[in-house]
Amino acid sequence: MKREKAKVKVIPLGGINEIGKNITAIEFKDDIVVIDCGLKFPDEDMFGIDIVIPDVSYLIKNKDKVRGIFLTHGHEDHIGALPYVLKQLNVPVYGTKLTIGLVETKLKEHGLLSTTELIRVKSRDVIKLNSVSVEFIKQTHSIADASAIAIHTPIGAVLHTGDFKIDYTPIDGEQTDFTRLAELGRKGVLLMLAESTNVERPGYSMSERTVGESFINLFGKAKGRIIVATFASNVHRMQQIITAAQIYGRKVAVSGRSMENVLQVAMELGYIDVGKDTLIGVDSINKYPQDKMVIITTGSQGEPMSALARMASSDHKKINILEGDTVIISASPIPGNEKLVSKVINSLFKKGANVIYEALADVHVSGHAFQEELKLMHTLVKPKYFMPVHGEYRHLKQHCDLAVKLGLPDKNAYIPENGEVIEVTRDGIRKNGTVVSGQVFVDGLGVGDVGNIVLRDRKHLSQDGILTVVVTIEKESGTVIAGPDIISRGFVYVRESEGLMDEARDIVKNVLKDCEERKITDWATLKSNMKDQLRSFLYERTKRKPMILPIIMEI
Amino acid sequence: MKREKAKVKVIPLGGINEIGKNITAIEFKDDIVVIDCGLKFPDEDMFGIDIVIPDVSYLIKNKDKVRGIFLTHGHEDHIGALPYVLKQLNVPVYGTKLTIGLVETKLKEHGLLSTTELIRVKSRDVIKLNSVSVEFIKQTHSIADASAIAIHTPIGAVLHTGDFKIDYTPIDGEQTDFTRLAELGRKGVLLMLAESTNVERPGYSMSERTVGESFINLFGKAKGRIIVATFASNVHRMQQIITAAQIYGRKVAVSGRSMENVLQVAMELGYIDVGKDTLIGVDSINKYPQDKMVIITTGSQGEPMSALARMASSDHKKINILEGDTVIISASPIPGNEKLVSKVINSLFKKGANVIYEALADVHVSGHAFQEELKLMHTLVKPKYFMPVHGEYRHLKQHCDLAVKLGLPDKNAYIPENGEVIEVTRDGIRKNGTVVSGQVFVDGLGVGDVGNIVLRDRKHLSQDGILTVVVTIEKESGTVIAGPDIISRGFVYVRESEGLMDEARDIVKNVLKDCEERKITDWATLKSNMKDQLRSFLYERTKRKPMILPIIMEI
Repeated sequence: MKREKAKVKVIPLGGINEIGKNITAIEFKDDIVVIDCGLKFPDEDMFGIDIVIPDVSYLIKNKDKVRGIFLTHGHEDHIGALPYVLKQLNVPVYGTKLTIGLVETKLKEHGLLSTTELIRVKSRDVIKLNSVSVEFIKQTHSIADASAIAIHTPIGAVLHTGDFKIDYTPIDGEQTDFTRLAELGRKGVLLMLAESTNVERPGYSMSERTVGESFINLFGKAKGRIIVATFASNVHRMQQIITAAQIYGRKVAVSGRSMENVLQVAMELGYIDVGKDTLIGVDSINKYPQDKMVIITTGSQGEPMSALARMASSDHKKINILEGDTVIISASPIPGNEKLVSKVINSLFKKGANVIYEALADVHVSGHAFQEELKLMHTLVKPKYFMPVHGEYRHLKQHCDLAVKLGLPDKNAYIPENGEVIEVTRDGIRKNGTVVSGQVFVDGLGVGDVGNIVLRDRKHLSQDGILTVVVTIEKESGTVIAGPDIISRGFVYVRESEGLMDEARDIVKNVLKDCEERKITDWATLKSNMKDQLRSFLYERTKRKPMILPIIMEI
Repeated sequence: MKREKAKVKVIPLGGINEIGKNITAIEFKDDIVVIDCGLKFPDEDMFGIDIVIPDVSYLIKNKDKVRGIFLTHGHEDHIGALPYVLKQLNVPVYGTKLTIGLVETKLKEHGLLSTTELIRVKSRDVIKLNSVSVEFIKQTHSIADASAIAIHTPIGAVLHTGDFKIDYTPIDGEQTDFTRLAELGRKGVLLMLAESTNVERPGYSMSERTVGESFINLFGKAKGRIIVATFASNVHRMQQIITAAQIYGRKVAVSGRSMENVLQVAMELGYIDVGKDTLIGVDSINKYPQDKMVIITTGSQGEPMSALARMASSDHKKINILEGDTVIISASPIPGNEKLVSKVINSLFKKGANVIYEALADVHVSGHAFQEELKLMHTLVKPKYFMPVHGEYRHLKQHCDLAVKLGLPDKNAYIPENGEVIEVTRDGIRKNGTVVSGQVFVDGLGVGDVGNIVLRDRKHLSQDGILTVVVTIEKESGTVIAGPDIISRGFVYVRESEGLMDEARDIVKNVLKDCEERKITDWATLKSNMKDQLRSFLYERTKRKPMILPIIMEI
């Protein structure tokens, strides 16, 4: 009997050729280990969509095999889809302390906390499952408590780096576990999956600590209040703001729901130390002199509903920007958010604030490894096979090139696609089929009820609006009883285009007359004639193509 | 009799607190000089809008005073609104040779060439008007033949820098006319208006020539075809691509209508020298070996309909991307275009091309002055008053700060707004009133027929779609004859939401019944009730707010 070769299957269900929605299934025999379960924010052409989550049909179909979801860290693009996925797939969730703390807040909001098994792990913890074991390995990243995850199988280890940077001087003193990574490398890692976000950036990212030095420097010069916007989840950044505030005897208030939530969790779990008498409520900020206040806020991406954007547009209930405020935007705009951020910066400047952002001072560092850091990871781990993850195709391609330059044989690097089943044996890496994968749109309360047709319609409506044509017809005789009425929205300013609308009505009348004469009572034909004639008339006259919606009521 | 102080009025009608749509009126006594007449590309929330042009009501109202439109250079954000404005304001247009050449192409398309007086000028030409004279002064920029414009008035000169950078080694050898600028500075410039695009960038921009060196270097390494995407208007960039091609004995083909147009104009006017036997038609590219071809193309901003984007999506009629092609994107993404550009890069990589862009090599330089270059301009011109133009508020503010750091008294710097009338005398600069200004939307053939209501509707439609409710009612009795019918578009995937739609119909029926019972025949009230009840029902069930359009047909 020929024995089938032992193999590990890697199935990325998200995070490939996209930024966000990270989720990867790693399968050995009857065990499926899921790494991360993230969301993605919608592209600009996904009109009305709130968030995008992965299609996990494959996991649901194989739910008996799924041993758990293992989280590398607590960012939304790694944990944000959990509330939706757990409703269909109730499996244990493993993560480090802060990660689980953030998941708890999230599940509480969705009423899922009591039904979910959350398991806290520490670095170097190994979870034994049936045929594999899962190990958490310390990484540094722009959120505390980040991990790489190693899945030990009988044919070798699969290492997923998670998101990481190399920070030799992290704020919590917890460096990347180089020792363990090197040890794994010496024993032999079968496959490494490594994040690719910053593969285009040469050199090294700066340490998070350098931002703290900028804060101390800038806080020393600020004469009025200081408002710092940053990512809510970056607890080390928050700690550094608090520390700088304390150096100058300033109080700290926090604005923005996600920021308040994270601070709460981080303080409870011991990730942020505010000392005593530093933290005050937003309601009390006016009790202190302006040069004794620091406000930490959300909105570093210019999100229109965020606390900072509200301050900038005088729409915040409790905080107004004052002349002489120093506002520090401690973040980079995520691609696509540049204009939103710029809008906020402009408004803040107009209100007389001194605005400081990445272009002007070192108030942000990236949380993702630059080229030289990626090279260090590759060199320590020395995997036999390599698969770049977390990035658009350009990033994945360049990450492969980087690995090959470091000596990896070309054929041992594999650029995956979402939904591919990639089989890795001791002798090779190859694609063997695909599974269902894709994106599920969350719009309000609806999960998956908005699909491509609805999005296509929204896009069409957004471009040239809609023209509704209504007519009531007597079924038997085909006689028009009422109408045709034409109502448009988003097409033209009607008062200035009355002539155009009158002509459009005449066109519909002619179509109706023609159909009546030809005794056409097939409404589909009638509607289609109306659409065609109106479409070409309107395009000729306006070069626009509104959606045309003919409605025939029969009595 | 008290004699009124002589004053220059400066009225920016566009280009302030925005990128693009540059147009400024400079008025002395009965003479209005208009500098530039540009368009702006729509923001992402201006759904369906093709371009945005300035509201020039003020100029039309004062058309007897307008002596002409004086163009600093031929970029769209400086000349693009001409065809629309000239239809309402037929005044002479002045510009340098290439600028007028590009304007001619544009006016020809709009059938305006025969009715427009176009006047070619050379650097240092002075056009005498009644009370003022206008002088063109050589500048370097990312298009050939760029100028600063000085308006000489009895109380001093107003200098508008136009767009510029300092390039000591321009491709055409035509440097900024430092001598003339210094001369003006020595005589005394009353007011300088200077562009602010790159005021946030420290140091100096690199010379255009450095890009040519990169091309020579990259072309030397390329084994297959070379495809270079860049801005159509950058004739020096095009020249450098052609020169590099010639060095390696490669033929050059050009793809993309705007690129072909500009090349035609630039060759005719002597701005590009292709020698003989270099240029071939796109139809002939397959007659030459791949390592003997260079294709210059549009699409450096990832525009979905551009030649490069079509190649990337296998949608180009004549050019397919081949494995081994080298594609150079010789441009920076304009803010807002990052994702489009990235999408094209990803597709090109997937097709096996070697893609080279700004992050990876020096294939682009900016055409706008960095901080040290701006300082040089301020230092040469030494204006008494200063007004930053061309930029968002953040740029204008920082440009003022830069001027003040160089010694300008704080009160002599003025940040304008579009539509402000800024009066400058020998003794001061101050705002004195405003005129009508703003943006006019061009959508298809319509100029100004889409306003804020239409845009608001398009935005609403784009978010949650539309629900049309139709009912036919007998006017006398108030009896429902047909309907209610509910048709939605862009709201939910109807087949999966039949239950929801049935319930919605029941709600409308109840409203109708209620109105019938209460003998309400005021359709406005009926419609408003339908809307309210449907809106809250749908929001409760879906957390979405589609547009609701009730239509009542009466018979």
